[in-house]
Amino acid sequence: MAEKPRFVIVGAGLVGSMLAAMLGREGFEVEVLERRGDPRAGKMESGRSINLAISARGLNALSRLSLDDEILSLGVKLYRRAIHSPTGEISHQAYGVGGQAINSFSRGELNRALAQAAGDAPGVTLRFGRRCLEIDPVAGKVTHVDAATGDDLRTSTGVVVGADGAFSVVRGVLQKREHQDYAQHFLAHGYKELFIPTRADGTPALELNAMHIWPRGRFMMMAMANTDGSFTVTLYLPMTGENGFDRLTTRDEVRGFFDRHFPDAVPLMPTLLDDFFANPTGAMVTVRTFPWQLGGRTLLIGDAAHAIVPFYGQGANAGFEDCLELIEQIRKSPNDLEAAFRRYQDIRKPNSEAIADLALANFNEMRDHVASPWFLVKKRLEKAIHRVLPGWFVPLYSMISFSLIPYAEARARAERQARVLKRVGLGIALAAVALIVWAVR
Amino acid sequence: MAEKPRFVIVGAGLVGSMLAAMLGREGFEVEVLERRGDPRAGKMESGRSINLAISARGLNALSRLSLDDEILSLGVKLYRRAIHSPTGEISHQAYGVGGQAINSFSRGELNRALAQAAGDAPGVTLRFGRRCLEIDPVAGKVTHVDAATGDDLRTSTGVVVGADGAFSVVRGVLQKREHQDYAQHFLAHGYKELFIPTRADGTPALELNAMHIWPRGRFMMMAMANTDGSFTVTLYLPMTGENGFDRLTTRDEVRGFFDRHFPDAVPLMPTLLDDFFANPTGAMVTVRTFPWQLGGRTLLIGDAAHAIVPFYGQGANAGFEDCLELIEQIRKSPNDLEAAFRRYQDIRKPNSEAIADLALANFNEMRDHVASPWFLVKKRLEKAIHRVLPGWFVPLYSMISFSLIPYAEARARAERQARVLKRVGLGIALAAVALIVWAVR
Repeated sequence: MAEKPRFVIVGAGLVGSMLAAMLGREGFEVEVLERRGDPRAGKMESGRSINLAISARGLNALSRLSLDDEILSLGVKLYRRAIHSPTGEISHQAYGVGGQAINSFSRGELNRALAQAAGDAPGVTLRFGRRCLEIDPVAGKVTHVDAATGDDLRTSTGVVVGADGAFSVVRGVLQKREHQDYAQHFLAHGYKELFIPTRADGTPALELNAMHIWPRGRFMMMAMANTDGSFTVTLYLPMTGENGFDRLTTRDEVRGFFDRHFPDAVPLMPTLLDDFFANPTGAMVTVRTFPWQLGGRTLLIGDAAHAIVPFYGQGANAGFEDCLELIEQIRKSPNDLEAAFRRYQDIRKPNSEAIADLALANFNEMRDHVASPWFLVKKRLEKAIHRVLPGWFVPLYSMISFSLIPYAEARARAERQARVLKRVGLGIALAAVALIVWAVR
Repeated sequence: MAEKPRFVIVGAGLVGSMLAAMLGREGFEVEVLERRGDPRAGKMESGRSINLAISARGLNALSRLSLDDEILSLGVKLYRRAIHSPTGEISHQAYGVGGQAINSFSRGELNRALAQAAGDAPGVTLRFGRRCLEIDPVAGKVTHVDAATGDDLRTSTGVVVGADGAFSVVRGVLQKREHQDYAQHFLAHGYKELFIPTRADGTPALELNAMHIWPRGRFMMMAMANTDGSFTVTLYLPMTGENGFDRLTTRDEVRGFFDRHFPDAVPLMPTLLDDFFANPTGAMVTVRTFPWQLGGRTLLIGDAAHAIVPFYGQGANAGFEDCLELIEQIRKSPNDLEAAFRRYQDIRKPNSEAIADLALANFNEMRDHVASPWFLVKKRLEKAIHRVLPGWFVPLYSMISFSLIPYAEARARAERQARVLKRVGLGIALAAVALIVWAVR
């Protein structure tokens, strides 16, 4: 048998760290290069960090590393949506049935736990503060330097794995090659992070175990709890035009806008105006590319292969699922990595397309439909049918967040279910008409 | 009135040279930076050069520079398709009516004529052998060096125009910015250039004034005349799989493939096997991006904004049309270039999308449909209707190649025409059935 190949993973974020831990446990030699500092060393900024949602798929991957219990203790369970109306009334929509919940995490804490797991795995070397200078995707070679000084030039060889996110440098190199399809599409909306601290007595200012949403049609705001009881708030507005970021250029304009649209949130946000002007306006991009591998020597995973918008809370979950599938395919043909990588990309590509589309569609749902009474009736009806016929009907949100059904299959099944429901609904309506005709005759 | 802005055009290809000539004549100061050498200086390689098709749109733009007569004398008129069957029979399909023709040009000769026009225009400076190092799209600044030595660093300021083709460096800089949508999609087919020389007596080996096509369903070959009577041949095959380039690795395999599929062409191609292995296999890409301008300081034009596949012969024509539209919009608001650029991109973007889609669709037509008898009947019927009702029905190919109707409008009109024809056809069929029923009753 040939010598075991080694891996050079670019990026020690969530997906890069998880993959390093998994490959190390499979007995591979792994080197991880990360531009930023070691998340295990630095003191974590508590509270004001980016949150992300982990649900069944993510927990399933974490359980393979026996990290699920440890990680769950770091998160906040969100059982339902809390919808804030323009006049401040709050209504609720449960996410699942029987206590199902998604989990809100600090990205930093999750990353630290995963980097720890990677560092503890046999054969894994983590190198922080390293910037990639050059990548040879055909030979499998990465040249890198100290990110701060630009000195200390080194070369690492092995299977190059691009786990370096939506603006992946590894993918950038592949993009310049012929027959590499690539697309980046930006939402016309941007986002801005804001903050709701705990009350003076240290208690949360909003219900802790809910995802708070202020749907306003063309725009929205949301808030997810941090473990310390504060909330990270995200405002989503069009970049330009009516209610757009370009119309909010003075403190008076921002204050007026919030008083008009989010009156119940304003008293909870003492640093609103400072945060609004201090924090950058972020962009949201969907990235699609193919193929995801080159000759068994270079590979893309996570956001580097399929960055999606955040509205289904599935970005990290999808990346973690990539890791599981990749490991499974490598186990099937450890001596033919190219074949393993091809099966991995062929299985994951349609699933990544499905969740990319669903995440875009969910933006409309969150900012608009959740506020409509008809939407509430529909959701309750779906849950009732699911309770009566759990094997036959599962709401799409449940399949995505609380099952391991592949994304593409979940979407196809939801489409089938919708068609049948429509037909059944028509049948019931016809029966009702027949009944009325019979009754009045 | 403010001082007239100056332009820095990156790329002195067909579109960059044409735009420089037009802007110079409008009274603007223009600097053109081109990595390659001066096409006016070098002796032109005759015969074996890439051909391209110029039709009504291209000629219209050339006529604004009074270059159409000079240029037409350099080309070969193609009045019809000559379809070569697998057994060597040749059938014909006229492109238009009444002597309408597309024109086959050597890209090199056309480029030389346009570079000449640009160099002769007032206020235009052409700099060849210059490589761009850095581009600041916000300030409008290009840093460039001698392409050969890397020395002689200079900075040019002005409105930066990316006329640098499908793999545009200017667009590459814009792509890294937020809210710049971008997509590159490669055909699963590649192409290879081959050659048919003149006969020993100097006469053409095939009919000179025809576009020769060997349609074979999933693949095809075509040949376009050069002015010296030789032909540039292009073979289009899938990259992999049945009849794919990856199956043709030995001289015997190539010879066998050509004997099987192109028996009538083999005797005309004495250097076939050498050419096949000496020439690279090219890739064909469709590039879509938006926006095409940034703050009135940076602009994309031609292939840099919308590279398309070559199957409608419209790549250069579309780029020339961009130049005309840009000049027209600049004339409308010479003191507000950003507004002019926005109108230019809003008008040209849907047209570029239309011709991109039509070019992809035409690949199917050329390699497959042209060989079907039903296709021939349909084309003849279309032409007959056009002759009887020229104001009401114009075949799509004629609108694209022999009219100035904007691409998007031509496509929409063709769809309307097809719907009406279908309805008329159905009406005639129903009338026929009624007649038969009446007759046999």
